[in-house]
Amino acid sequence: MRRILVVGANAAGATAASFARKTDREAEIIVVGDEPYSTYSRCGLPFLISGEIRSLEELVTYKPSHFKAMRIDLWLKSKVVDIDRASRVATVRRRDGRVEEVEYDSIILCTGARAWKPPVEGMDLDGVYTLRTVDDCLAVMRKLEHARAGVVVGAGPVGLEVADALRRRSLKVTVVELMDSILPASLDADMARRVQSAVEREGVKVLLKKPVEAVSGDEHVKSVCAGGMEVEADIVVVATGVRANVELGETMGLAVGVTGCLKTDMKLRALEEGRCRPVEDVYCAGDCAESVHMVSKTPSAPQLGTTAVRMGKVAGINAAGGHCTFPGTLGTFASKMFGIEVGSTGLTERHAKKLGMEVVSGKVTWRTRAEYYPGWKHVTVKVVADAETLRIVGCQAVGGERVLGRVNAMALAIQSGMTLQDLSRADFGYTPPLSDVLEPLSLAAEKALKKALGKA
Amino acid sequence: MRRILVVGANAAGATAASFARKTDREAEIIVVGDEPYSTYSRCGLPFLISGEIRSLEELVTYKPSHFKAMRIDLWLKSKVVDIDRASRVATVRRRDGRVEEVEYDSIILCTGARAWKPPVEGMDLDGVYTLRTVDDCLAVMRKLEHARAGVVVGAGPVGLEVADALRRRSLKVTVVELMDSILPASLDADMARRVQSAVEREGVKVLLKKPVEAVSGDEHVKSVCAGGMEVEADIVVVATGVRANVELGETMGLAVGVTGCLKTDMKLRALEEGRCRPVEDVYCAGDCAESVHMVSKTPSAPQLGTTAVRMGKVAGINAAGGHCTFPGTLGTFASKMFGIEVGSTGLTERHAKKLGMEVVSGKVTWRTRAEYYPGWKHVTVKVVADAETLRIVGCQAVGGERVLGRVNAMALAIQSGMTLQDLSRADFGYTPPLSDVLEPLSLAAEKALKKALGKA
Repeated sequence: MRRILVVGANAAGATAASFARKTDREAEIIVVGDEPYSTYSRCGLPFLISGEIRSLEELVTYKPSHFKAMRIDLWLKSKVVDIDRASRVATVRRRDGRVEEVEYDSIILCTGARAWKPPVEGMDLDGVYTLRTVDDCLAVMRKLEHARAGVVVGAGPVGLEVADALRRRSLKVTVVELMDSILPASLDADMARRVQSAVEREGVKVLLKKPVEAVSGDEHVKSVCAGGMEVEADIVVVATGVRANVELGETMGLAVGVTGCLKTDMKLRALEEGRCRPVEDVYCAGDCAESVHMVSKTPSAPQLGTTAVRMGKVAGINAAGGHCTFPGTLGTFASKMFGIEVGSTGLTERHAKKLGMEVVSGKVTWRTRAEYYPGWKHVTVKVVADAETLRIVGCQAVGGERVLGRVNAMALAIQSGMTLQDLSRADFGYTPPLSDVLEPLSLAAEKALKKALGKA
Repeated sequence: MRRILVVGANAAGATAASFARKTDREAEIIVVGDEPYSTYSRCGLPFLISGEIRSLEELVTYKPSHFKAMRIDLWLKSKVVDIDRASRVATVRRRDGRVEEVEYDSIILCTGARAWKPPVEGMDLDGVYTLRTVDDCLAVMRKLEHARAGVVVGAGPVGLEVADALRRRSLKVTVVELMDSILPASLDADMARRVQSAVEREGVKVLLKKPVEAVSGDEHVKSVCAGGMEVEADIVVVATGVRANVELGETMGLAVGVTGCLKTDMKLRALEEGRCRPVEDVYCAGDCAESVHMVSKTPSAPQLGTTAVRMGKVAGINAAGGHCTFPGTLGTFASKMFGIEVGSTGLTERHAKKLGMEVVSGKVTWRTRAEYYPGWKHVTVKVVADAETLRIVGCQAVGGERVLGRVNAMALAIQSGMTLQDLSRADFGYTPPLSDVLEPLSLAAEKALKKALGKA
């Protein structure tokens, strides 16, 4: 009987264990998690802060009973401290402090990532938080009861979602961002400005191109110094990204890629340090694992919930003796914040240019319903394509409604290699309450096409 | 200077004229329409009845001022009564009764379609209507003020949208349908049942497999006899489909296809009767024009607003000396009714089987948001694929929200030849308020895939 050890009780780990079970009905499967909670949705934490979600329990997506029903052993508050790859033995410290040696046949590393804070003074003051775990979230929520002014450092998805949550909790909120536009990993500056308008419309201040220089206070935080400005704060949430937990992998001699994550092959097997050779029976999935970008074919680690689930599935099936390959990622992202919806898939114009690609883009702002149907909102879509082949390589959308459906459609278009011409000729559906008779995606494609053909 | 004559001031005609203008800045362009109204949205008529749209004026999508700004002559209440193809002269009866001979260089036939009623007794009684034109709509609305019980004959999109409108106007409503499920052209019976439940939940009665035998009353309608049943009604709306207006085309010697519409080539040129040879400078677009189905490659005429606009564009560009081809249709359809959204694209299982295709399908009912995010609704998606190649050929969706985005995504997937495997590996976006971390389209693809590979 096969024994499969899953390191990490997060989305990737729980998914991997489930699919391992579906693939091998007999295998012994152990999931080791270091937090005290069963698998929960990290993506839901901002909504717990905002009050949209009422209780922590609701965020638990795999309950212990669920693991039990699948005959998966769930070891919480436990930590894999060492792995001997040659003998296939993991050393695990259990919740009672006991250290145990666990033999395995295959192992799936879902060690995740941890919040990263800029190395400046004052980050350890009381009132300064990150938002990565349930405990982080609970700490923020306790502090919130007496807080009036909040600073969020970092205008990525998590930063902005937290800023929106703090605003809903009636705080005066300022977002401080190092780059020259918000959501820089997902949106070009022109699209980001539309989101920024929505953020500012709701009374949240955004400071761009402001590196955080220090957090000040005595014991309790009092202000944040960024780009020479001092912003008052009695709560600070630092959302400046995450770093993959690769230490365990490194001690096993696994290769770490340019993304800072563990390198993998198509089956999500780990690669050996220095050799680029897959290690049999060691798989990686989720925020700690590197994959490849479907368009650019360069190393990619979007560290999103969806990627974790998609990777977990592949790693779980393979670790249990099945066969499954991971097609790579497009980094498809979506968020609802400040009364608008935002989404993006594939490469932004900025990202493509950085990769040395020549691209052409078309952007259109349109209505979400027929002009005469009450309640329509604006949606802006930007389609990015390779200037030579006219293949679509990316899409961004911002609007009052119906953003994600469009972004998902474009994820399929990119995956399947559609060109601007293809998109301009697509047969989209129409009904006055749900769309206009002209689809902005097609209009944006036409606009890009005209540019590419030198007609505009 | 080129003179382009457009026959029909409908969506196809107005679009054709606009694109002709964009293509040839100098051309003289004349649009001839027989109704007294400038181009309006037929798809909006049910919402005028329901009260969602307040005034007829709002439905006018191309105002006379709009035509004027584009330097397009709009002749309303006028009719092209004859066309001499050899000499390129059209005989037009103007609104003042005057008959005029108009020379043209190219002509675009957008003669549209008319409502068709089953040939049974009583169809001419007072209180029996179709819903094709503004005048139809106004007549229905006048009647509604004193009506209590309505029967809608035909459970296609128009029939159901009208039934919903009558219900909103507090009538007791019964829908009578000849086929064994509602929306038979767009949905398989299993999916149609979900829609039917929503219709019935709102108190509207649905009678299936009931051919209308007669409409009874003396002067005013009193009841509808269908399949041996007698249903009381003081208003009857007959929504049993349309027939293309091809008479003008026939007198010109143009070919009519199996769909009852005028045959066209890729450039949307009309074909000559008996020869299958394109007629130079005669184009067809909209409800009167036949095209080809993107998947089955068989003749197709979905007679939808979107098709009219897409065809109008191609015909307009070509008629003005440009070059543009029409890629065919998928019949992508969407509707919002009875509190749910419905959509479909490509082939249904039933339709595919009729064409002799062997297909496999996967159907999944899922949540529209994360399980823990309040307000989620159910959405059911059904993906249909060719059993041999596993290429996706159709998709249907029914749900509380976010239906059209999914259907549009699948329209792209079908157009680009994606397989079930491709779809199961797609990188869809996720955020708790807008989606679940698992996407039902991918789950449905996996289900179909398992069936195809004999695993289920």
